[in-house]
Order: sequence, then C-alpha cells, then structure tokens
Amino acid sequence: MAILVQKFGGTSVADAEKIRRAAGRALKAHQEGNQVVVVASARGKQTDHLVADAMELDPNPPKREMDMLLSTGEQQTVSLMAMALHAMGHKAISFTGQQVQMITDDAHSKARIQSIGAEKLKEKLADGYICIVAGFQGVDANGNITTLGRGGSDTSAVALAAALGADYCEIFTDVDGIYSADPRKFPKAVKMQQISYDEMLELASLGAGVMHSRAIEFGKKYNVKIHVRSSMNENTGTLITHEVPQMEGIVVSGATCQKDLAKFDLIGVDNTPGNAAGIFAHLASHKVSVNDIIQTEVSPQKASLSFTAARSDLDSVRQAIDEIREKVHCESVFVREDIAEVSVVGVGMRSHCGVAEKMFRALSENQVNIDSITTSEIRISCLVNLEDVDTALTAVCNAFELDKPAAERAQS
Amino acid sequence: MAILVQKFGGTSVADAEKIRRAAGRALKAHQEGNQVVVVASARGKQTDHLVADAMELDPNPPKREMDMLLSTGEQQTVSLMAMALHAMGHKAISFTGQQVQMITDDAHSKARIQSIGAEKLKEKLADGYICIVAGFQGVDANGNITTLGRGGSDTSAVALAAALGADYCEIFTDVDGIYSADPRKFPKAVKMQQISYDEMLELASLGAGVMHSRAIEFGKKYNVKIHVRSSMNENTGTLITHEVPQMEGIVVSGATCQKDLAKFDLIGVDNTPGNAAGIFAHLASHKVSVNDIIQTEVSPQKASLSFTAARSDLDSVRQAIDEIREKVHCESVFVREDIAEVSVVGVGMRSHCGVAEKMFRALSENQVNIDSITTSEIRISCLVNLEDVDTALTAVCNAFELDKPAAERAQS
Repeated sequence: MAILVQKFGGTSVADAEKIRRAAGRALKAHQEGNQVVVVASARGKQTDHLVADAMELDPNPPKREMDMLLSTGEQQTVSLMAMALHAMGHKAISFTGQQVQMITDDAHSKARIQSIGAEKLKEKLADGYICIVAGFQGVDANGNITTLGRGGSDTSAVALAAALGADYCEIFTDVDGIYSADPRKFPKAVKMQQISYDEMLELASLGAGVMHSRAIEFGKKYNVKIHVRSSMNENTGTLITHEVPQMEGIVVSGATCQKDLAKFDLIGVDNTPGNAAGIFAHLASHKVSVNDIIQTEVSPQKASLSFTAARSDLDSVRQAIDEIREKVHCESVFVREDIAEVSVVGVGMRSHCGVAEKMFRALSENQVNIDSITTSEIRISCLVNLEDVDTALTAVCNAFELDKPAAERAQS
Repeated sequence: MAILVQKFGGTSVADAEKIRRAAGRALKAHQEGNQVVVVASARGKQTDHLVADAMELDPNPPKREMDMLLSTGEQQTVSLMAMALHAMGHKAISFTGQQVQMITDDAHSKARIQSIGAEKLKEKLADGYICIVAGFQGVDANGNITTLGRGGSDTSAVALAAALGADYCEIFTDVDGIYSADPRKFPKAVKMQQISYDEMLELASLGAGVMHSRAIEFGKKYNVKIHVRSSMNENTGTLITHEVPQMEGIVVSGATCQKDLAKFDLIGVDNTPGNAAGIFAHLASHKVSVNDIIQTEVSPQKASLSFTAARSDLDSVRQAIDEIREKVHCESVFVREDIAEVSVVGVGMRSHCGVAEKMFRALSENQVNIDSITTSEIRISCLVNLEDVDTALTAVCNAFELDKPAAERAQS
C-alpha cells in the first residue's frame, strides 16, 4: 500500500469549508488505497493574530515563548481536520510535532529537524487512520516546543515523507504547479511536468516562491518525490525529483527574475587573503544575506568586490560597510538601487554550450544592457537595469521557448 | 524560600491588560521572596470560540480531538504571560501540561491526574524563573493530550502545589473569598477567614461555585493550603485548610441553597437487596448525577425511594425510570419541580447538638414548610418549596448569625 503525505498551507485551511475540502481530499486519497498523512499549517491569519497578541505584551518576546505561542495555530488546525474527517465517518487522529517526535535543534523560530519517530504514525496508518500532523513545529531534546521558520510546514511534510518512506509528498498550493516562468510576468509560461531538486533550489533561492528551499534540500537529501499541485482542482502538477535522463535534453527549464535587489561595489579593497571573508562575516553579523558575489582583481594589491543583497537590507549594508571601510582599505563604494536580476536555470546547461551566448544575444536584441553576470553549473544570471527587467525576462523566455512544452523546444 | 502556586482563571487573563496585571501579581510575590509558579486558564471566551469552531465541523467530535483543540487556549495564555513578565524585565518560562509531566488517565474531557514530574519546575524555580504552567490539561501514558474537565485549572494548581510541596496555593477569583452565604442572597454575609476542606467540599457540591470539588479533594488528600482571594485587590481571602481546633467552636460556618433541583419519589419499590443499587446504576448510565437519596421502608416488602437531581436532567431521569419501572416493581412515581434545598455546613456540628432543632425552628418561624431532610456529619439540608427558598436561606443565616464574624457568634 502506497504512503502519501499531503501538505495543506494556511490558505487551504483558512475556514471550516476549506478544512472540509482539504479533509475530503485526504479521504479521497485514502479511498484510492493510499495510507495518508496530512501535514497542515495554521488557519489563514491565525499566526498573524497570535503575533499581534504577543507584540501587545512584549515587543521583543523570547523566541522560546513565541514558538510556544505560534505552535498552537497548527495544533488547532490538525484537531479540527481530524474532526472534519470524523464527521465524514472516517477514522482520523491528530498529532503535534512533539507527539510524532519531530526532534529539532534548539534554534527557536528557525529550528532544524534532527530526527522523526515514525513508529506511532505507522501504527495508526496500519490501523486505518488518516493521520494529521501539525506542520512547522517540533520539539528540542529538552522538550521545548520549536518552530521551523519560514516555509516550515513544507519542510515538516517532506521530512515526514522521508521518515515514513512515503511514495509521494504532495504540496497543495494555490497554483497548478511550477511554471517555466512566473505567468504574471510571462503569460505564455507552461507548467513543467517535472523539475530536478537542483533546478528547483536555484528557482526557490531566486524568488520563485512556491516552496521554501529547505524543504527542497530535504527532499533531495532523502530522495522524496515532491508533487506540487493545486488544492482547487485535480490536475497533475509538477514533480520535483532527482534528475532523470530526459531532463538533460531540456537546456533551460525555467527563467525567473528578482526585483528587490541592490548592488554594492567596493572599489580598491586590499587584495589580501581573508579580507573578503572578513567583509562578508561582518555583513552576516548584521543579519544581511548576501546574494551573488563578483570579485575582480584591479592590481596585485587591489581588488573590486561587488555583491547584491535585498534592497530592504540597504541601510544595514551601508552601516556594516561604514564600520569596516577603513580596516579593509576600501577606496570608494558605489550603491545601485535601480538594479534587478534575470536568470535562466536548467540541468541541461551542464552538457550544452551556447546557453550564455543565446541569453546575451536575446538581451542585446531587446536593447537590455547587462551590468554584470554570474553563473553556476545550472544557472546564468544577469544584472540589468530595474526598468529593463520585464523586457529582459520576456526576451529570455522567448529565446528559450519557455512558452512550449519542454519536449517541443529546439535543442540549442 | 517559600513556594507559592498562583492560579488565574479565564476572566483574570482575558486581555493583554489583565494578563499584565496577573503577571504583575506573580512578580510581586516573587519580589517578596517566594518561588512562584503560575497556573493559567484560557483567555476569556477563547474556549467558547474553539468549541464553536469544532461544532462547525463536527457536532459530535471525538473527545481526544476536542482535548487537542481546547488545550491550545491555555498554551496561548501561558506563553503570553511569560512574555509579559519578560517585558517587565523578569525571567519567566511557560510549560504545557505535557512539559511538566502532568500525567493523567485517558478519560478525555474529564481526565484525572495520576502523577506530576516536578523536577523541571524546581530546577527553573531555583534558577530564578517564574514558571507559568497551562492549567486544565495533562497528557496520558501514551502521550495524548487530555483535559481535566470543569474546574480543571483549580485542580491543576492544587496538584502542582502538592507536587512541589508549595506553602500555599492561591486561587485568584472575582470574589474576595468564601462567604458565610452568597452575598447576593444574604447581603450581610461575612467573609470567612478559614474553612476546612470538608466544609468547603459540602459547600462546593451544594453549589457555592467558587471552586470545583475535585480541587478541594486534592487539597485535602495532599494537605495543600488553599488561599481563595480576589484578583482585583490585595485583601486576605479565605484559607481552605485542615480542620484546626478553633474551628470546632464555630457550629455553622456557612449556609447555601440550590434552586435548580427536581425531586423524584418512587413509591412502592421492591425492598430487596440490590434493587436501589440497580436503579441508581441505571440512572448513572443515563449520565444523571443524583444528589440526596432518602429511602423509607413502607412494609417489609416495599420501600419508597426519593432523590433529587438537577432539573436540567428531568427528561433523562423520567426516561431512565420508565425503562426500569416494571423491573423494580415501582407502583407510582411523583416528580416535584418546584423544589429547592437550603443547607447549613459546619465541622462544629459534630460536637454540638441542637443544630437541626435550631434550623427547623428558624424555618418554622418563617412559615417555611420542610418537604424532607437529609444530613451528613457536617451538613443539614432541607428541601423546601422553591418559592420559599430565599426566605428559608435568610432565616437560617439569621438564626446562625452568619452576618457576624465567626468568633462573635453565640455557641448554641
């Protein structure tokens, strides 16, 4: 009998009617012969309400207490969903993170899963129950309730699927799957049938926003097939899986852009070992998450160091740079706020040349100037003027035929 | 260093301002040199809201899932109160029932406490923390969340006080303490300085309503001094404790009445061993809680059996009696709905005669007819016409001088 983990996010369980619909979905999968584990998030705005309640009492609450408070949101959803299934005449049982021994480290508000005790779930599944597990939460070695941070319920679901040896982990969302580009920006984008973990990780970190990268990392590590699909219809969505041979034929799987960036150029920095590391360690101490980094040697003694970060971190970055500017002998600093990034991703790039050339030509033909370029094994990203980014994305999508099903695209 | 357990009910933690006030109260006790454990209920109407959410999905929800749902209410309060104390600059930590190993049986919605693991609390208290524990909830031997039923947070508090060897368990409420009679019915009633567990048990079961009898039973069993006091002022309230010598001088400590009763007379029941037991077992199977029972022998073969029950159980009782009437050979059944009970309670009765006589005389002088009488070692109860009960209570209160401090009353 196949084991299926189904994850429903907050909008899919926002009210009684939606909880009933999600429960019906789980029941259908059960009636089709699967053993079903549901992972659910807090209802709609519940978490926001709880955060507001906390802020009213303590503007800077201890993270342990915040986790204690927020974890009640998921606990409510899972018991309500078990009731919904009971009302449909089916056996269902809910569990907190603690009750399925979802053991994490003690990093409250962003804990990482260390182990899961799947025995109780397996026993209840074998006994015919649909099991509903609170997402987003776990418990540390001392029994304190922890939460997994942003995208935590996705991670809970994939981790449970790994622990149970589930055949699939279904992530229900408000979109039909993963598209070759954001359909709001490139309306002709097509839904992908499948995508590799590595491609999805690049897309997630680039802001595609459907799933959090930690969940995908977990899936990759434990080989969990993740099916991203709509909670509103029965359509097949997108399967996130290990690279399979036919994927290599697809040069570029998807394109994406990021608009909320700022670029920083540190000119004339001392080109000594450890200097760059010192700069980025200092930025990290200011909680700045740095994206792409480009270093160019200007002379044997001097280098230019460029990087991008979220535009919302602008002030933090400026302050951090001011603090260490003298120490690293930085001659001048340029900041660009009117910048954006367009990227193409595809495991097929590994074995195909000419991808970069095709991308640059597409941009050039559309009068988009490229500020700078970074690449990974399966990604090419170009920084462009913010005002050009929509044009750039459309140009790239057209160039790589992202409006066609993958099999019909020309092999470049 | 003294250990103090403080219990705050739902109305005392209904909003941020009230949580802050309760937290302030705990902090004050801590600053006065006590180790403080707070037990808190769900905020105001939270439990009602959760019940409504459940009913929307399942009119007959599994009790295990209801407990899972309702226990979130207390969990929210305790984390919020820990935040309030943190905002005041103090170390505080919250715990679920599970986290303090409040082990209960598996009778969901009315579980009974079996043991408590106080080690973690003692450790945190020694470390200077104020500990906030979710009331009303526990966990069974299999790790399922349970709730303790009505008055459960009182029971949690007294049980924790017992497990910790606390010097006092303070029950904060919206009244100043336990009064010699309900001040709404006998405005001259006086606050008692102390009362014995046994008296309080009689008063609780008779409907005085300040504390649930299970909490008092726990206090008696484990010798926990319970201080019932107001959450709105600093006045000393009433100490519930073991009988102390000076209590014996007080013949009658308090008087109370119960209006929501119905009386049932089963006439001509077979007077054979086990017959009455069979009747009451059958009533229990209908979830009817029977109050006072009077049996009178009419002939060696026949008896009359009278009992009272809550008027809201009228239909259940009638149905239960109909079902077994033939089997027990009951000749006729009378039901009185216009009945009420007035009672006096006092450990001093044990060593004083004349209490019954004084009560009956007081009723007689006020033209109150007595339907029937039941007594225990420390209680005398009279059933009277419903329309006479207020007169009866006032007459009894005056007769036993319940408007005077206990020490000033005449020894009858």
